[in-house]
Amino acid sequence: METTLIKNLNTKTDQEVLIKGWVYNMRSSGKISFLIIRDGSALVQVVVVKKEVGEEEFAKIAKLGQETPVIIKGIAKEEPRSVGGYEILASNIEIVSENKSEYPITHKEHGVEFLADNRHLWIRTPKQTAILKIRSEIENSIRSYFQKRDFVLTDAPIITPAACEGTTNLFEIDYHGDKAYLSQSGQLYMEAAAMALGRVYCFGPAFRAEKSKTRRHLLEFWMVEAEMAFMGFEENIKIQEELVYTIIQDVLNNCENELITLKRDIDKLKQISLPFPRLSYSEAVEIIQNSDEEFKNFKWGEDFGAPEETYISNKFTSPVFIHRYPTEIKAFYMKPDPTNDKVVLGADLIAPEGYGEIIGGGERISDLDLLLSRIKEHDLPQESFEWYLDLRRFGSVEHCGFGLGLERTVAWLCGLEHIRETTLFPRMLHKMYP
Amino acid sequence: METTLIKNLNTKTDQEVLIKGWVYNMRSSGKISFLIIRDGSALVQVVVVKKEVGEEEFAKIAKLGQETPVIIKGIAKEEPRSVGGYEILASNIEIVSENKSEYPITHKEHGVEFLADNRHLWIRTPKQTAILKIRSEIENSIRSYFQKRDFVLTDAPIITPAACEGTTNLFEIDYHGDKAYLSQSGQLYMEAAAMALGRVYCFGPAFRAEKSKTRRHLLEFWMVEAEMAFMGFEENIKIQEELVYTIIQDVLNNCENELITLKRDIDKLKQISLPFPRLSYSEAVEIIQNSDEEFKNFKWGEDFGAPEETYISNKFTSPVFIHRYPTEIKAFYMKPDPTNDKVVLGADLIAPEGYGEIIGGGERISDLDLLLSRIKEHDLPQESFEWYLDLRRFGSVEHCGFGLGLERTVAWLCGLEHIRETTLFPRMLHKMYP
Repeated sequence: METTLIKNLNTKTDQEVLIKGWVYNMRSSGKISFLIIRDGSALVQVVVVKKEVGEEEFAKIAKLGQETPVIIKGIAKEEPRSVGGYEILASNIEIVSENKSEYPITHKEHGVEFLADNRHLWIRTPKQTAILKIRSEIENSIRSYFQKRDFVLTDAPIITPAACEGTTNLFEIDYHGDKAYLSQSGQLYMEAAAMALGRVYCFGPAFRAEKSKTRRHLLEFWMVEAEMAFMGFEENIKIQEELVYTIIQDVLNNCENELITLKRDIDKLKQISLPFPRLSYSEAVEIIQNSDEEFKNFKWGEDFGAPEETYISNKFTSPVFIHRYPTEIKAFYMKPDPTNDKVVLGADLIAPEGYGEIIGGGERISDLDLLLSRIKEHDLPQESFEWYLDLRRFGSVEHCGFGLGLERTVAWLCGLEHIRETTLFPRMLHKMYP
Repeated sequence: METTLIKNLNTKTDQEVLIKGWVYNMRSSGKISFLIIRDGSALVQVVVVKKEVGEEEFAKIAKLGQETPVIIKGIAKEEPRSVGGYEILASNIEIVSENKSEYPITHKEHGVEFLADNRHLWIRTPKQTAILKIRSEIENSIRSYFQKRDFVLTDAPIITPAACEGTTNLFEIDYHGDKAYLSQSGQLYMEAAAMALGRVYCFGPAFRAEKSKTRRHLLEFWMVEAEMAFMGFEENIKIQEELVYTIIQDVLNNCENELITLKRDIDKLKQISLPFPRLSYSEAVEIIQNSDEEFKNFKWGEDFGAPEETYISNKFTSPVFIHRYPTEIKAFYMKPDPTNDKVVLGADLIAPEGYGEIIGGGERISDLDLLLSRIKEHDLPQESFEWYLDLRRFGSVEHCGFGLGLERTVAWLCGLEHIRETTLFPRMLHKMYP
C-alpha cells in the first residue's frame, strides 16, 4: 500500500490510507486516544478507539511518548474541527522504534540556548518546520524567476584568492600553502560570466567573519546574485522589485498554512504593491534630519545603520529603494552618476517592519581608466584584479547587478525576531554545533 | 525598441529587431561584410551591405575586432544555411566601446594553460558557453525533480566542526579561535532534516583538499544530496535512476544546440533506458577477475579505481549500479545487509563511457548501538557525533539517501575530457586564479 503524505489527505477522503510519521502530541481517555502525528508535510489527528484495536494494542498506544515513530493504517475523514481539516480513524498502529529516553524538547517553553544546542531536534517543531519550508519556497521562487527570464545559473567559486572589499571580515584558509579566503560575494565573477552569457546569476553560500553578535547577521549565509550585460540602473531596479514581489506572491499562495503556524501578520505582506517607492540617499537624509529621533543630527555622507533604515522603512508599507549613495561609502566598482559624481548609481532595498537591507545593487564602472583609478584609491592590489580589468579592456559594455540576502528575506517574510531560525544549522560567533 | 535575444529570432521572422552582443568572427569583401555576433544566448550572422549603411560606416565595420561590443538594428530573415537558421540584414550598427588591444583568444588553437589563465575570457567561446548552459540546465532539472516530489530544500552548513570521514582531505579554517573545516558532505545534516521534514535535499558546494591532479577531481565542486525518512535501499535506487534519467531527457530536449556545438555523440545518451542495470560488488569483482586486463588479480575486499570502474561500465550502455560493497571499505554510517553483514546496503552509480562514479548512496544505520560501535571502530570522536546519535535515540526510522556529483555529471553529458571545463572558475591544485 502506498504511503500518503498528510498534506495530501484531502485527495483520499473516506479511503483507507497509510501514513508514516512521529507522535507530536497525544491525549487519552479510557476508551479513546487522540494522537497528533507529524510526517514533515503537515500534522493530522489520529483517533484510536479501544474496541477497534483491542485492549492490548490500545494500552501500548496510550503510553506512546513524544517523537515515537509510527506507521498508521486507517480511514481519512473530513473533520473541520481538526488541525488541517482531516482526521484518521486508525485500524492499525505499528510502533517503528522505541525512544531511548524522554524526548528533550517538550511542549513547555525552553530557553533559546537549549534549543540552539538541540537544533537537530528543534527543527522538528511546527514553527521551525514552517520556517524551513518557507525558505525552500523562496529559493524555488527565486530560481523560477530567473529561469523564466533566460538567466543562466553560473555558480561562483567559494575559495577565492582576493577579496572584493578588503580582507578584514574574511575567513582565511590554507590552500595547499597559498593564502585563500572564503568568498563574501560572487559579483566580480558574475560580471565575467555576464559578458559571456548575457544574463547570469549565482545562488550559494557567502561568508563574513564578523565579530558582532546581532539578530540580523550570520557568519555563513546564502545570497543570490544576478548580473546583466547591456543593462543600466533603472532596468536593474525593475528586475529587483519584480523578483521580490514574485517571492511574496509565491509565499502567500503556496505557504498559507506555514504563515498561519508562524502567526505572521499576512495583511502586511498582502498590502505590498508595485512599483516600490524610491528615495534618493539625499532625500532619505532629509527625512532623518527632520525627525525627532536620536539620529536627527545625522550628516550627509554617513552610512545608514539599522535605526535609520528602520525609521525610513516605517514610512512605507512596501520595501523602499534608497539610491544614489555617496561614492565615498560604496564599493570601488560602483558607477558614478553622470550628472553628479559625488553619488553612485547604486541602490539598496530596505524591507518593511525593520528587517533592514535585503538587496544591494547597482550599475558597475565599465570604463577601464576610471576603474583603474578606483582600485588605486581603495588601495587594492591591481595584480589581483587584472582579470577583472580585462572585462573593461575587451568587449566592455554597460552592465549592472544586485545581490539579495536569503536569510534576511526569510526572516522578514516569516516575521522572525532573530535570523538564527532562518536556516537549518546557523553559524554564529562561537556557535557551530551541531 | 525592445532587445531580442538571438535564440528567439525565430519569433521575429521578417521583422525589425534590435540585438546587443559581441563580434565573434567576421569576413568582408569590398561590398559586403558578414559578422558573426554572439549575445550569450546564441550566434547569428549579420549581413552588412555597403550601399545600405554608407561608405564611412561600412569602412568602420569592416575593421571591427573580435569581441567588440555592438548594438545592431536590422531585419531578421530565415536562412537555413546560416548558423542558427537565421540572419540579420543590418540597417544600423552602433559600436559600444573599442577594445584596448587585440583580443587574446583568437580562432587559432591555444594551449590549455593559457586558456585556464584567461578563464574569464575563455568562457566567451562557443564550447565553454555551451557547457555552462548545459550545467545550468542540469541544475534546474535536478531542482524541478525534487520539487515535484515534495522534497524540501534544506541548505547544509559549509563550516563544520567535525568531519564525516576523517580530516585528512579537509580544508581547515580558523573560526574565531576554533578549528573548523569546509564541509565535504551535507549528509549527516540531511539525516537530521529528514527526521523533521520527511524528504529533503541540499545542493551546494563541497570541498576536498586532495593533493592529486586528475581529470576527474576538483577541490571545490557542487553536490546534490537527498535524504528520505521511512525509506530503504530499493526505493533509494529507484529515485536515483529516475533522477539521472530525467536529467538526460531534459538535456536532450532543451540543449540540442549546445550538444551539437560540443560534438557530443547524442546517440550514446539517447540509448540510455530505465531501469539501469544493477550488479553486486561480488558480481563486479568476478567480471574483473575474468578479464584479460592488468587488474585481473583484483581481490574481493579491495576498492575499485578508475580503470576497474571503466572496464565494468563499458559492458553497459546505461549507467550501472554497483551495490553491496564490503563493509570495511565504506563509511561508518552504512547499514549492513541483514542477510550478510560483510557487505552494506549501499550502491554507487557508475556513468558510461569511463566517466566514473556519479552517485554514492545507501541506507543508513538506524540502530543506536550498532552506530555507536561503528563510531568506535572508525576511531571517530563520539562527542562530535552526539547530535547525530540523537537521531537514533529519538524517533529513529529506516532512512536512506545519496549524493550526486554535479561536475562529473556535466563532464559525462557534455562528453568532456577534463572536469576543469564543467564550472565557471575551477579550483584545482595550485590553481585558483582567476
